[in-house]
Amino acid sequence: MNGAPGPGEDAALSVLPVPGLGEIARGDDLARLIAARVALLDGDVVVVTQKIVSKAEGCVVPLDHEDPAARARLIESQSVRVLRRRGDLIISETRHGFVCANAGVDLSNVADGWATVLPDDSDRSARRIRDGLRAATGRQVAVIVSDTFGRAWRKGVVDVAIGCAGIAAVVDLRGTPDAMGRDLQATEVCVADEIASAAELVMGKARAVPVAVVRGVDPAWLRRGSVSEEILRPPAEDLFR
Amino acid sequence: MNGAPGPGEDAALSVLPVPGLGEIARGDDLARLIAARVALLDGDVVVVTQKIVSKAEGCVVPLDHEDPAARARLIESQSVRVLRRRGDLIISETRHGFVCANAGVDLSNVADGWATVLPDDSDRSARRIRDGLRAATGRQVAVIVSDTFGRAWRKGVVDVAIGCAGIAAVVDLRGTPDAMGRDLQATEVCVADEIASAAELVMGKARAVPVAVVRGVDPAWLRRGSVSEEILRPPAEDLFR
Repeated sequence: MNGAPGPGEDAALSVLPVPGLGEIARGDDLARLIAARVALLDGDVVVVTQKIVSKAEGCVVPLDHEDPAARARLIESQSVRVLRRRGDLIISETRHGFVCANAGVDLSNVADGWATVLPDDSDRSARRIRDGLRAATGRQVAVIVSDTFGRAWRKGVVDVAIGCAGIAAVVDLRGTPDAMGRDLQATEVCVADEIASAAELVMGKARAVPVAVVRGVDPAWLRRGSVSEEILRPPAEDLFR
Repeated sequence: MNGAPGPGEDAALSVLPVPGLGEIARGDDLARLIAARVALLDGDVVVVTQKIVSKAEGCVVPLDHEDPAARARLIESQSVRVLRRRGDLIISETRHGFVCANAGVDLSNVADGWATVLPDDSDRSARRIRDGLRAATGRQVAVIVSDTFGRAWRKGVVDVAIGCAGIAAVVDLRGTPDAMGRDLQATEVCVADEIASAAELVMGKARAVPVAVVRGVDPAWLRRGSVSEEILRPPAEDLFR
């Protein structure tokens, strides 16, 4: 502590919650609502939870919360393949290509009698919000649409990216020399998922903060990106389907 | 932008890289080295990569990098069960209970002819570093030991927690009312993994920054925690083993 220098402030990252968007309904302009709540800077990554993207896009369907069979039918309608089933839990591949629990059907933070389903194309949703933020603020920002996924071998859920725009989903460090000066063999880091997870830390499920800004990411990552093209593992490479 | 309030600075999180630790060797006191490089505050979460924990603990073994059979033998020696094998890639359950590629055996950032293996008990490693940081700085901090894991259905790797001390690995939000005032059904968030992922964003594989400080996490999370007790999924609950 005595005379210890501070950490590398220049290279630091900030994660800022954006509260106060209010309840979102079909047709709401998320970019305009976000732009009114936060002063964005060039290079910011705006993380928007799937829940409000689905609500704004009208991806909300009627569902009797007390009827497990209706819920299973809805999940199956959003799936192209069921991988595992145990009790109420269905692990499936969604029509978008995600492998997750319950095909992204979500009953929390929705009015009774309704559920949200995933946006049709979350990369496109991210691009629209990014374009809207640019129009509203003049800032060049990236956008990630996030959702909450479980993992096969680890308890607890984490937020991951289901769509992105203006940022690479996966950054390939293959061929970058490591600190020993040797080429790294294979280090493709899924920065979009890591950013979604970082954003979740300031959101909290029950605090109704559906947007966060991650400020200070490596500018080299801010280029064209796509979750569906970069993160979804082709079935031929999948060892656990 | 015009008159837009700033984001919620009070609830913001900072992620600060801690560079300059130098090359780590067996017996090095990581807590003392970290304390000399960063002015910690109460409530900080110090994320330390597995690589330097393994080096400090002497979890470094000789390995001919050109001999795939020797590498496979080393991976098998660290495993209790092989789940899948394709080419050089081995997905196994390690003797610690992690399901990951190559049983945590790592050749990057190690001298030629050597490899690191995972610490014997990364929760214990985290506790030792935490105790050392408290002794060196007087601060009450949490510690997470992180490693880089792939995922079954998503390309790219992310950093996750393999050990923790002074912070819950999984935070149970079951029963916390959502923004609609209804009880959330099951939202156990693996904050330790999310914090490890956030830290990775300022580390970078090739930049040799093996430590980061995550500042501003929810103080309610800062209690006793254990990756092995909270995150490892019991085989009976595992649908993909």
